This record gives sequence, C-alpha cells and structure tokens, in this order.
Amino acid sequence: MQKKIQVETDKLFTNITAEVEKFVKKCGKKSGIVNIYSTHTTGCIWLTEDEILHHVDVRFFLDSKVPRWKNPEGEQSNIKYLHDLISLRNEVPETERINGHSHIRSMFFQNSETVPVEKGKLILGTYKKIFFIELDPVRKREIVLTFIKI
Amino acid sequence: MQKKIQVETDKLFTNITAEVEKFVKKCGKKSGIVNIYSTHTTGCIWLTEDEILHHVDVRFFLDSKVPRWKNPEGEQSNIKYLHDLISLRNEVPETERINGHSHIRSMFFQNSETVPVEKGKLILGTYKKIFFIELDPVRKREIVLTFIKI
Amino acid sequence: MQKKIQVETDKLFTNITAEVEKFVKKCGKKSGIVNIYSTHTTGCIWLTEDEILHHVDVRFFLDSKVPRWKNPEGEQSNIKYLHDLISLRNEVPETERINGHSHIRSMFFQNSETVPVEKGKLILGTYKKIFFIELDPVRKREIVLTFIKI
Repeated sequence: MQKKIQVETDKLFTNITAEVEKFVKKCGKKSGIVNIYSTHTTGCIWLTEDEILHHVDVRFFLDSKVPRWKNPEGEQSNIKYLHDLISLRNEVPETERINGHSHIRSMFFQNSETVPVEKGKLILGTYKKIFFIELDPVRKREIVLTFIKI
Repeated sequence: MQKKIQVETDKLFTNITAEVEKFVKKCGKKSGIVNIYSTHTTGCIWLTEDEILHHVDVRFFLDSKVPRWKNPEGEQSNIKYLHDLISLRNEVPETERINGHSHIRSMFFQNSETVPVEKGKLILGTYKKIFFIELDPVRKREIVLTFIKI
Repeated sequence: MQKKIQVETDKLFTNITAEVEKFVKKCGKKSGIVNIYSTHTTGCIWLTEDEILHHVDVRFFLDSKVPRWKNPEGEQSNIKYLHDLISLRNEVPETERINGHSHIRSMFFQNSETVPVEKGKLILGTYKKIFFIELDPVRKREIVLTFIKI
C-alpha cells in the first residue's frame, strides 16, 4: 500500500496514469485515496488533460513568465536567478548547472496530488490524467505512491 | 465516507464550505482529514478568504497574466493558445470552444485540497473557506469528498 | 496522530522540517502520510530546497509578478488591489492593512502539503525540506499536523 517507482522522463509532460492505475488495482477493490508524490524539487506532479497543444501552451507560458537565464547554446535572457550563481560555483553536472528557473517553475505545479479511488479504480473524470512534470533535463526520477483506504 | 456531489457554479468563486461541513458531520465525531477533489480540468478547488474584493483581485490577476484569446463578442487579445485551435476544429459546444486560457489558469489553483477534521469539525481557522473555482462558462460540476479517519 | 503547533515566522521562508519529523517519530515506526496544513490564508506550506539564493529568487519573483501596492514607507507601485480598500476601511492593525498582494501571492503556494512516511521517517528525497511561507508581516502562526497510517 506504499510503493516507490521509477519514471524515465523524456519531455516536460510524462503520462504516469497507467503506473498509478496498476498500483491501485493491486491494493484490491477498496475505496480511499492515492497520494502521488515526487521526491524531487524540480520534478513535480500535476493532474491535467492529455492534449499535446495544451502541453505546448504550458511550455510557452513557463518560457514567457519564468525564462531560463542561459540556454545550452549560451544565449541569454535578461532574467537572472541567484540560484544559478551557486550552481555555477559547485561541482555539479554541466546539464544541471543552470536551473534557477526550474525551481521557480515548480511553483506552478505540485509536490504531490491526491486522487480519490472507488472500489479499486481512480476517479479521474472525463479528461484528467496524471503527469510527472520534468523541469530539469530529462532523466530517471522517483515517485512514491501511497494508498489509504477509507 | 466517500461521496460525489454536484455543484452549480455561477461565477469564478462558488463557496462549497457548507456542503463539505455537512458531509464531515455525517461521518461522525471523528478526527482525520477530508479530501475535496474536482473531477474536472478547468474547474478547481481552493481554500481562501470569502471576501468579494479579494475575489475580484483574483479575476483581475488572471485576466492580466493569462488573458483569453477571444471573448464571446469577438474581441481579441494578442495572446493565443494552441489548445484553442483543436477546440475550434472539434465538435464541441460553442461556449467551450475557446478555453486554452482556462487550462493555463488552472495552474494557479488545486485539483484537490485536504483539510484536517477535529471531532467532526473542519479546521478552517478564522478566514479559510472552501471554494470551487470555475474557469469555464458556469455549469453543473462534480466533486468527490473523501473522509479518512486517523 | 493529530497535533496543532505554533510557528514563529521571521522571514518569507521558515524551515519547519524538524517539527514535522518530531511529530512523525512520536507516531511510532509506522508508514503512511502526514498532512501539514496552515490554518491561515496569507501563510502557506511549501516543499522546496533549503537554499538561500533560491529563496531570494522566489522573493524577487513575487515582487515582480505580484508587487505590493504601498510599502510601509509610503512608496507606491502602479498595481492596486481592491482588497486593500476594505483593509484600509476596517479597524485592523496597521501592519496588516495593506495585504491584497499577500492574498494573490498565496496562489503560488499550498494550503497544505502531504508527505509520505516510511516506518516513522519522512520521505523527502535529497533536497526537499518543509517550509512555512509567511506572506504577511512576521508573527506567530498555527499549523495542523495529521498522520494517517496505511
């Protein structure tokens, strides 16, 4: 009734609904809630529609409201993040150095989402799906699923 | 200890505190948490103060940061959402066609909120109330209430 | 398994991880979830990294996207909040009068966060810490901790 699983992210939105459904099914035909939790600070959870153009709108929105300071090609925006200074100083992998914007972007998503479960089935409505939101370069991430029965 | 209820929204903020209180009371004089969940992607849950001028400030904030592309009178902003293209193409009701902004606005609210319960009473503090946030044209919406006892 | 605790805030971010750890430890070596809930509307909960430059970036971000109308020295921004009008009219302490921006800023944080617990220990990953976010002048605040076992 509590399980850690790995997610291989390959873009901003990774649909993890099937993994959560599978976990909930294994908990038996019980009702309750399932909490889906990211153990990371720049990788989040969010319930929204699985519609590619909406996902691109989210990307545009983040790029416009919270631009990155410097992209890998060295192009700069006029927004700086103090967090990037500490990243540059420390011995961290090159791909992670500039991620002050990722931390600010996490303000628009969730550390965890809680979904009600009815007799072993997620209550998602017509359009809701469960996503892992990758705000840093793509990688392997960890989430924790916890089922609590009523 | 789990119940679906209908909410008739009539503006951005619909106060649903009384419905949640009623549900919690029926669960007996127990302590625990209640999860209030929207089954929709453009209708959210949020705990905030029941103060009309604050609610108008939220409306102004959303209109300024996430303007709609085209209003029903045909006036256009210079912000476009790709999601609106798919809405225009599909056979969806006229009132829902232009809602790319509603999906982005949902980033400022919650899919669900969890409130602690003490002996059958919601712990809301002095000012907190529970709201359904309608980001699309007003309609009947569904929420799921789940009570989990400690 | 449910406890109210007081937090003395002294800046935007107050690290409350130790208090939550202590509470979870007292619940025994059980697994489940802990819900950390603020009873306030302008004081929130957020899980993020305990890195001072990131915290300053959050402050800059809020100041830029949701400026206060008037600071205590009387300097004004060109953003007004209707909520400030009611604050000015009512008999509230001087320090709280101008807080329309605090209510809007709360849209970027959480009323509560839920963290999974494994055998009496919080699952926080490498960087996550638990913070109380003070959006009004610093003061004594109340949070509610609820542990639910699986």
